[in-house]
Amino acid sequence: MIVEMRTGASKREIDEVVQRAKSLELGVQLNEGTDKTVVAILGSNTGQLATDVFAVLPGVEQVTRIMKPYKLAAREFKGEDSIVSVDGIEIGGRRIVLMAGPCAVESEAQITAAVKAVKEAGACILRGGAFKPRSSPFSFQGLEDAGLALLLQTREQFGIPVITEVVDPHDVEKVSKYADILQVGARNMQNFPLLTEIGKSKRPVVLKRGLSATVTEWLTAADYVLAGGNEQLILCERGVRSFEDSTRFSLDIGSIPVIKKFSHLPLIVDPSHAAGHYSLVPAMAKAVVAAGADGLLIEVHPNPKEALVDGLQSLSPSDFTRLVGELRPIAKSVGRYI
Amino acid sequence: MIVEMRTGASKREIDEVVQRAKSLELGVQLNEGTDKTVVAILGSNTGQLATDVFAVLPGVEQVTRIMKPYKLAAREFKGEDSIVSVDGIEIGGRRIVLMAGPCAVESEAQITAAVKAVKEAGACILRGGAFKPRSSPFSFQGLEDAGLALLLQTREQFGIPVITEVVDPHDVEKVSKYADILQVGARNMQNFPLLTEIGKSKRPVVLKRGLSATVTEWLTAADYVLAGGNEQLILCERGVRSFEDSTRFSLDIGSIPVIKKFSHLPLIVDPSHAAGHYSLVPAMAKAVVAAGADGLLIEVHPNPKEALVDGLQSLSPSDFTRLVGELRPIAKSVGRYI
Amino acid sequence: MIVEMRTGASKREIDEVVQRAKSLELGVQLNEGTDKTVVAILGSNTGQLATDVFAVLPGVEQVTRIMKPYKLAAREFKGEDSIVSVDGIEIGGRRIVLMAGPCAVESEAQITAAVKAVKEAGACILRGGAFKPRSSPFSFQGLEDAGLALLLQTREQFGIPVITEVVDPHDVEKVSKYADILQVGARNMQNFPLLTEIGKSKRPVVLKRGLSATVTEWLTAADYVLAGGNEQLILCERGVRSFEDSTRFSLDIGSIPVIKKFSHLPLIVDPSHAAGHYSLVPAMAKAVVAAGADGLLIEVHPNPKEALVDGLQSLSPSDFTRLVGELRPIAKSVGRYI
Amino acid sequence: MIVEMRTGASKREIDEVVQRAKSLELGVQLNEGTDKTVVAILGSNTGQLATDVFAVLPGVEQVTRIMKPYKLAAREFKGEDSIVSVDGIEIGGRRIVLMAGPCAVESEAQITAAVKAVKEAGACILRGGAFKPRSSPFSFQGLEDAGLALLLQTREQFGIPVITEVVDPHDVEKVSKYADILQVGARNMQNFPLLTEIGKSKRPVVLKRGLSATVTEWLTAADYVLAGGNEQLILCERGVRSFEDSTRFSLDIGSIPVIKKFSHLPLIVDPSHAAGHYSLVPAMAKAVVAAGADGLLIEVHPNPKEALVDGLQSLSPSDFTRLVGELRPIAKSVGRYI
Repeated sequence: MIVEMRTGASKREIDEVVQRAKSLELGVQLNEGTDKTVVAILGSNTGQLATDVFAVLPGVEQVTRIMKPYKLAAREFKGEDSIVSVDGIEIGGRRIVLMAGPCAVESEAQITAAVKAVKEAGACILRGGAFKPRSSPFSFQGLEDAGLALLLQTREQFGIPVITEVVDPHDVEKVSKYADILQVGARNMQNFPLLTEIGKSKRPVVLKRGLSATVTEWLTAADYVLAGGNEQLILCERGVRSFEDSTRFSLDIGSIPVIKKFSHLPLIVDPSHAAGHYSLVPAMAKAVVAAGADGLLIEVHPNPKEALVDGLQSLSPSDFTRLVGELRPIAKSVGRYI
Repeated sequence: MIVEMRTGASKREIDEVVQRAKSLELGVQLNEGTDKTVVAILGSNTGQLATDVFAVLPGVEQVTRIMKPYKLAAREFKGEDSIVSVDGIEIGGRRIVLMAGPCAVESEAQITAAVKAVKEAGACILRGGAFKPRSSPFSFQGLEDAGLALLLQTREQFGIPVITEVVDPHDVEKVSKYADILQVGARNMQNFPLLTEIGKSKRPVVLKRGLSATVTEWLTAADYVLAGGNEQLILCERGVRSFEDSTRFSLDIGSIPVIKKFSHLPLIVDPSHAAGHYSLVPAMAKAVVAAGADGLLIEVHPNPKEALVDGLQSLSPSDFTRLVGELRPIAKSVGRYI
Repeated sequence: MIVEMRTGASKREIDEVVQRAKSLELGVQLNEGTDKTVVAILGSNTGQLATDVFAVLPGVEQVTRIMKPYKLAAREFKGEDSIVSVDGIEIGGRRIVLMAGPCAVESEAQITAAVKAVKEAGACILRGGAFKPRSSPFSFQGLEDAGLALLLQTREQFGIPVITEVVDPHDVEKVSKYADILQVGARNMQNFPLLTEIGKSKRPVVLKRGLSATVTEWLTAADYVLAGGNEQLILCERGVRSFEDSTRFSLDIGSIPVIKKFSHLPLIVDPSHAAGHYSLVPAMAKAVVAAGADGLLIEVHPNPKEALVDGLQSLSPSDFTRLVGELRPIAKSVGRYI
Repeated sequence: MIVEMRTGASKREIDEVVQRAKSLELGVQLNEGTDKTVVAILGSNTGQLATDVFAVLPGVEQVTRIMKPYKLAAREFKGEDSIVSVDGIEIGGRRIVLMAGPCAVESEAQITAAVKAVKEAGACILRGGAFKPRSSPFSFQGLEDAGLALLLQTREQFGIPVITEVVDPHDVEKVSKYADILQVGARNMQNFPLLTEIGKSKRPVVLKRGLSATVTEWLTAADYVLAGGNEQLILCERGVRSFEDSTRFSLDIGSIPVIKKFSHLPLIVDPSHAAGHYSLVPAMAKAVVAAGADGLLIEVHPNPKEALVDGLQSLSPSDFTRLVGELRPIAKSVGRYI
């Protein structure tokens, strides 16, 4: 941590910074520049220390963090890539894992049609929401427990692992009985009671990036799950909020190499929510595979025109089949397979 | 809702839009322009209808919402300004209500010093966090239940209502026993299980704006609480995320007249989290009062240098006292008082 | 254009809207909804009309544009893809065109080393800045005229077309004598005198997207050049400003399919400025090719450690050679070649 | 400047950083932390040095700037507040200066009606655009030279200084003959040839903040004008681009205390462009005065319904008169007058 003193800061003010560092058992090195004094605070845990601890002291102009605020999610903590294994399917290995299915479970007929379509096309994990966080209380909120039951039934009949969202910390145990992978939605990326509860679980979890979360905040949120003892964590980029309105969210393609550089965690991407329109999904999905992500989470509905939620961004089964065909050679080009 | 057909859309495609509208018991009016056909969808509930319902149909280029997606929070739903009453203090009336205190309750001595200072300066509600949502699991998370107990003790000893944050839907009942006003933090603005639970409560609630929530999304989230039957709702602007990094968040001063125009709900503003630095708080607080907000939520710590959380953005008691003195004539200038 | 009247708007207010439309020789269709009256304004040029024309009238709540504000850049104006031809190299055809070279021309030795490296690796157009728009007046501003002369010399010696930036409208003619392609930088996307001057030129031009320009604003800026008679226009995505700071700008990968959907113009992408760090460029470049862009503009410096400008985001010759090798199979996967 | 080495960086890599600093005649101090080595680069001009100079070296993880990149605009360069004097009117003194008038000069009748209205209401400087930078080439572009002539005529007839925009560097001399204050629009904040030309002029200039410029970039752009020798510089906040769409731009109210803290330059605010709607302008204008700005730039049109540009955000003369009356007591509350 670098503490920059104001021009003309007094010796007493500098001393107070030094004393505080020492009281926290941190090392100190003084840099007396021509204009300003800069105090370097040394120690292996300064990433977890609030900059305010020094910034509040008189005579301090600015405090800059050198160590990252996340710890367990950092590549410095664990050098090799983490792989999450779900029913024998490795996420973070050479295979690019396709998770596909409808936004919401709507009925037995719908989820059955969906699983058949996505499985045949090459997806190996089924997605489907039972609890749907919706902007308005007057929108369809999902089938809830009945949706979970349909997911379980589909899972067993078709022998495919399922991923579904959990929104309430007190539902983690229940949802874990039905699903192979828990999903934390973008709006819950910093729902700390939920993350804490999932940290105690042994279920794999997909942690979506918050709508306006920096990569650093996202990895720091991941630390909540990892610190609880659950290392089966997969990150999911899904676009961030920006001023641009031609897509629903702005897919941050740069986050893929950034995450691979700074973290050991596997990373998948949801191009459907970012695109907001089915016609834009294929180009974005191809970009994701080329950029080095470990998987895709794609919305596919057997009949998008009749979807209760997010029909516009859902691919039809034939569109999805075509897309998977187009993705295979790109995966091969980057040394992966689907 | 306005459904714009693609140039050259077929009669059959237009018919499908019309049929869907009729199946939803909505009216329809066709506008056959020189280049494009536009279908107006008529009905009083189109605000709550997803645009996807029409956007997924073939031949549709774009769907534009005319009615707002929020309903109960809208001024069209309730013409006169809502007033929330807490222990005789009216929020949304002529008085500008000051809520002040430390970010986190740290100890009996700290909260006692804080309440004395803010009460004497002119605040009429005490703020203080017992459950602190923190970016990192390795940061101080608040005193939790012990913090609630200290708040209650302070409340009774000093005869001042208290506001504190609730982060878990299952804590709503418990926290309601200790606090006069529940606070929903920015990161929980779209924590729908939490909003639903608070909707069932009878406690007044402050709903902070999400870090990247539009005003429309914020008012739609308010609908969750209102739809549950809890009308004691106060909005709180606290700055939004932007590219600018000289303040912690960008205080959206424009949201004050916008909310007053489109909603009947009272609105307070937290300049402390937006500023991120105590030296910037007074100017922002003055702007807020001048712009027409109904109150302020300000962080005041008896000794910011020793604060466990957010010390840098906390005012000292003497700074707060000076600020209140400066706010009084501005309040008077806009026909209010403190 | 859709004019939504306020609830309870009077007949006289509605009439005023209708009269204004008629005075502009536009058609009108009234939709009297249950709650509100909506007036559809019909005509083929409403995209170029300011919404204010109706929004200022009494009783109007909101005006929504249906037609796009850009015209000549729109796919509706020209159905087939435009191809810009530079010295026999087609931009917008099946070949993915690589433009590479240093951010700034620094010396004869440097630009010569650069052109050898990028040409051998597979680039067919040389980039190099002579006039450098720099944030601070105290930074290196480019070699200016001497830089142009070096570019011309390199161009003739190595038989490779060059692209260079023009920043002053009065330099368009001069720079056109030295360069095969003019570049309008992101900060000048809405420098209308510059665009107007380039519109009169016959030189191909690369129009970079502004730092916070929407796709719609970008295409509307393109209309300035096209309206002047210069149809040799290539768009260049280079990342937009967002809250995320782990990359220099946020590359808007979604803009690639969006532009391809709404415009006939060729589109290249500059991943170097978006990345800000050489280690992130390859993943982003691969994504760009997979997503369907027509070319790449990449910073390559013979010795990034000694670069006068933007060394951190420059690839070394060996990194660039490796990258081109990795891009070829991806290009092939999407039916293109390099 | 703080150079953070990667964990495990070699002695040779550290030496290379030290050597480069020495070759630039900068001082160096090494901090060997428990995990990482950090090199502090010392010297009074490191603010103007690109971070890339060190970031490109092998073994470097990150480089953080301690000194600000702007110099002449900084309060550290000039301690006391700068005052710009226009025809005896001091901008940056105790008086809050109102500049008002139409977005564009449209006709003699219009500008005459405008000047009468704004002067009577209390404005002391007339605004009016002759050259209008418009998003689309098909929109009204201003009266250009005829507009300048009308401004000059109005100026002389009514004895009021005028401010008008200049968009082309080669027009600076011409426009300076007609106007008392030159305006650089938001889209030209980083039009460096224009800033350089204005730097050579002796005319006072208002430099608007770019749509997505940070405060730091804005002050660094100001350095271009100041470095040229023109110290008659006034900053103008006008809202920045964000995801929020209920206002045209997001007025960054926090920039007022930030600028006052870090710069000596006077600062005015344009609430009209930020608001985008006349009904939101008064609340925002009041906030601006309360927050400590030195003046306001407000759009007033004698008949907004007939305005050729930006009618929706223009105040009518009676609205403006009422607003000025409301601003006076707020100005007094903060120790100023109008």
